[in-house]
Amino acid sequence: MSGLFCFRQMIVWISSYTFNKNKGINMIVSKKNILDFAKHYRATFINSITGFKNASLIGTVSGKGTHNLAIFNSVIHVGANPPLMGFLMRPVSVERHTYTNIKETNYYTVNHINKEIFKQAHQTSASYEKEISEFEACVLTPEYTERTKAPYVKEAKVKIGLKFLEEQEIKSNGTIFIVGEIQEVIVPNDAVLTDGYVDIEKAGSITISGLDSYHEMERISRLSYAKPGVLTKEI
Amino acid sequence: MSGLFCFRQMIVWISSYTFNKNKGINMIVSKKNILDFAKHYRATFINSITGFKNASLIGTVSGKGTHNLAIFNSVIHVGANPPLMGFLMRPVSVERHTYTNIKETNYYTVNHINKEIFKQAHQTSASYEKEISEFEACVLTPEYTERTKAPYVKEAKVKIGLKFLEEQEIKSNGTIFIVGEIQEVIVPNDAVLTDGYVDIEKAGSITISGLDSYHEMERISRLSYAKPGVLTKEI
Repeated sequence: MSGLFCFRQMIVWISSYTFNKNKGINMIVSKKNILDFAKHYRATFINSITGFKNASLIGTVSGKGTHNLAIFNSVIHVGANPPLMGFLMRPVSVERHTYTNIKETNYYTVNHINKEIFKQAHQTSASYEKEISEFEACVLTPEYTERTKAPYVKEAKVKIGLKFLEEQEIKSNGTIFIVGEIQEVIVPNDAVLTDGYVDIEKAGSITISGLDSYHEMERISRLSYAKPGVLTKEI
Repeated sequence: MSGLFCFRQMIVWISSYTFNKNKGINMIVSKKNILDFAKHYRATFINSITGFKNASLIGTVSGKGTHNLAIFNSVIHVGANPPLMGFLMRPVSVERHTYTNIKETNYYTVNHINKEIFKQAHQTSASYEKEISEFEACVLTPEYTERTKAPYVKEAKVKIGLKFLEEQEIKSNGTIFIVGEIQEVIVPNDAVLTDGYVDIEKAGSITISGLDSYHEMERISRLSYAKPGVLTKEI
């Protein structure tokens, strides 16, 4: 298997060289090239061209009370009023503990990954059995408040409690887009600015690229609301 | 209006103070608090708690040949085989040029925003009329290759050409999740590592938090594939 992988990898390098030679500073990769890539190379390549991704831990609990914690990089804003967030779940053709727990209990939490816990956060992606709590296995602490029926990650600084609202299946590959309504937000006091902006950089939130690369942020600037014919300025 | 806004803002500050006083270092915000926030404060708050967001320009062309370019912060990975990406579109109760163009021509491009063009990218969010090309209005250059029927942004370094596959309406608020299949990827040669990882930090890609804050990245580290009982290590 390893030999075959090496051989396929070599083919990929040779193909890359062909792109390089013909196209100057850019590599131009067609859909056919992508489908010809070795499986791991393709997964790594396609996952990293998406751009920088949200880095969150989603906390749930099963009907029987077993905690689950899983890393996701697809959390997005869905709406402010009502306050909604969404994330994409891989096909449920194999058992997905996060999905099962959300369907059983209706509640889940989204916890920003920060620099202090990114290794534990990454470790939650290992294939633990359903009866194993990733909180325990990855040395993170479950925490509840009055309003949530799902565990937060105590070590996270920005935490959101959500109630499941709807799911939409993406027919093209069986992934599922999950939408929840925000029930509660916990953020450090000193990160909330007077206009409502939450300085998540100050709160230590980080980001992911590809499947395994973690990045911290440095602000370039905030820009004013854009209007036609008016040059946007730094605020 | 402005007076009313100030008054509501003051209420928000007073409420925040109440959270602060009672809750120590954390602000705990309930769903009711969020619904009571002034409109702009709420939009800013909810948009920034999502976490760091993808920063992309989506390029399209209408059936009549007019270019359109719009900034999006919801692009996510959907699958590697077939190679799929998705993004969320606001409700089409008012005209959305990107949506109309994708439905007319079936093609669109996703272009990573980098530090050199983030002000022009932000400016595309102004409400331009349909017959105005944001490429021209925001001083960016449309560029075509053999494989795409939609314009890339020449000044972007990581560019993806996509073909529309499906749309799923989020019933909770009328937003639409658009899924497309990758037809072509253009990346700088020197950003592609031997395992397929594309170093988008090296390619200058940046990220957004909230509605208007732009951030550049610094890698903390890449981590090895996670397995139960094995400590993940830096690679």
